[in-house]
Amino acid sequence: MKIYDDKIQHFRDTLDKYLVVIYQTGPDSLKSPINHILSGRGKRFRPILTLIIADINNISINDAIYSALAIEILHNFTLVHDDIMDKDAIRHGIETVHEKWDVNTAILSGDAMLAISLKLLMKNKSINKIKLIQIFIDGLLSVCEGQAIDIEFEKKSIVSLEEYKEMIYLKTAYMIGLSAQMGGIISNLPEKEILELKEFGDCIGMAYQVQDDLLELFSDSQSMKKSLESDFTLNKKTFLWVSTPEISRVELVSILSNFSNDKDGTISTLRNFMEKNKIKQKAEVFIEQNINQSKRLVDGMSGNTQFLKYFSDLIFNREY
Amino acid sequence: MKIYDDKIQHFRDTLDKYLVVIYQTGPDSLKSPINHILSGRGKRFRPILTLIIADINNISINDAIYSALAIEILHNFTLVHDDIMDKDAIRHGIETVHEKWDVNTAILSGDAMLAISLKLLMKNKSINKIKLIQIFIDGLLSVCEGQAIDIEFEKKSIVSLEEYKEMIYLKTAYMIGLSAQMGGIISNLPEKEILELKEFGDCIGMAYQVQDDLLELFSDSQSMKKSLESDFTLNKKTFLWVSTPEISRVELVSILSNFSNDKDGTISTLRNFMEKNKIKQKAEVFIEQNINQSKRLVDGMSGNTQFLKYFSDLIFNREY
Repeated sequence: MKIYDDKIQHFRDTLDKYLVVIYQTGPDSLKSPINHILSGRGKRFRPILTLIIADINNISINDAIYSALAIEILHNFTLVHDDIMDKDAIRHGIETVHEKWDVNTAILSGDAMLAISLKLLMKNKSINKIKLIQIFIDGLLSVCEGQAIDIEFEKKSIVSLEEYKEMIYLKTAYMIGLSAQMGGIISNLPEKEILELKEFGDCIGMAYQVQDDLLELFSDSQSMKKSLESDFTLNKKTFLWVSTPEISRVELVSILSNFSNDKDGTISTLRNFMEKNKIKQKAEVFIEQNINQSKRLVDGMSGNTQFLKYFSDLIFNREY
Repeated sequence: MKIYDDKIQHFRDTLDKYLVVIYQTGPDSLKSPINHILSGRGKRFRPILTLIIADINNISINDAIYSALAIEILHNFTLVHDDIMDKDAIRHGIETVHEKWDVNTAILSGDAMLAISLKLLMKNKSINKIKLIQIFIDGLLSVCEGQAIDIEFEKKSIVSLEEYKEMIYLKTAYMIGLSAQMGGIISNLPEKEILELKEFGDCIGMAYQVQDDLLELFSDSQSMKKSLESDFTLNKKTFLWVSTPEISRVELVSILSNFSNDKDGTISTLRNFMEKNKIKQKAEVFIEQNINQSKRLVDGMSGNTQFLKYFSDLIFNREY
């Protein structure tokens, strides 16, 4: 729908316009990496979610922009620190901060980005500012805990599907839920609707992460292949990994052990393995259930919910 | 004064009682390092400052404790990340997080501590909560910027006294000013007095940092000698370094170049150098001026300012 596409493009352009000049003062050793990372080609899907929810409730972009920017910079703060931990060299098509500069610069730029993100949040004129700050801070702790559990999993040989779901809820879904929830708060919606928006975003986030795990193996995008390699190197626990029945785990480990010798061959064998064991289908069912739940929640909401559905369809039609 | 000593001890005990159980939920890989670092023998002088200012304005410890805890944990967050950057292995008599665990654990524990610190601040029931959060976030950005400038200085061969003062203001003094300012805000003091408290704390902080630089060279404490060594290794710019006149800098560099061969000899030569060139005296004058200014500010304040003066005297009578 052209009208929605145009609005989304306008939101993205507005966000990018602010982001490239968000931190002009301060020492060069912070300014350069922060401006570098915020000029990357991020999808901006969290802040766009906030802006759409504000928009369908007739809140102007000017009244929603600072919350949207805050969530995008919070997200980028987590990426800068996570990339150090995961030793990732490329993010959104550009070099990561610790790669282009060094680990110290990345630690400190991340910290400063968190401060900048909070400062932006404080600029919000919503009458529910305290509430906004409260849930934002809860989101920050959640994402730290999710990342900590994700790293703990690297050293574990057995992780259950339930444990995995708790991890991606804290690490990924919570903050997408937060983006939607913030849209509801700045729109002064009743508490019930705000909580439904949080749940809506949580469902989107759960589906998004499992889709990510699936795309890493089944998409032919180079960046997804890089993520797959990084996951194998770090012994990360993905949906596909935790859904493999115990009886087939020896086979999975044996397939993975050949990855460094023959990447394309291993990927092909893995794809067959996941299909044969119906693990791919299991992931697809999980994604669909969450998307359906998110749509049911949207159906009960006020405002132009068609726009919200359109946007969530866009998210899940991505190929990388 | 026994009555003040008893109160200070009570404040310290109360803080420590909260700090050792501050984070009981969450994954072990965060709980263990956070509890480890908060059980160190920190001086707790920032939160005690907040509590004293609340106390002399008849605000109970229960109404001030969360702000005090927030500032202490914010301070500890900066220490955990700074220790990674400065490769320091010991802090407050115990192993640093990146040393006992690893860099990733230290990055993530620091991040989580910041979230915990903000959560505690939100528990404050002050009617000026928004103001409290605002200045707290400004303090967070300030300390990041100060640390960034401190690291930039490591690569510079010339740093002026003015540049040095700006750096320690942002990195150290600002947060001590913040501790005092927060005490004023939760006491509902008039804006003018709150700003004077900030300036009072800033002066204490400036004096404290220069005293630190001085003690590193002139105290015989082992922990101070370790800090001195770390400063030399990292080419840190201290008050003594930036106050050395240009004409004597070649001599200073030559003295320092011998440090790894003969530590005690170099320390002794450096002490003589600093005294001969009246740089030690310059530092002492700077400290005194700042302490005097802090006392002038206190004299104009309401409440039992004797307690505040007593505490600031305690700070400056330390030997390490």
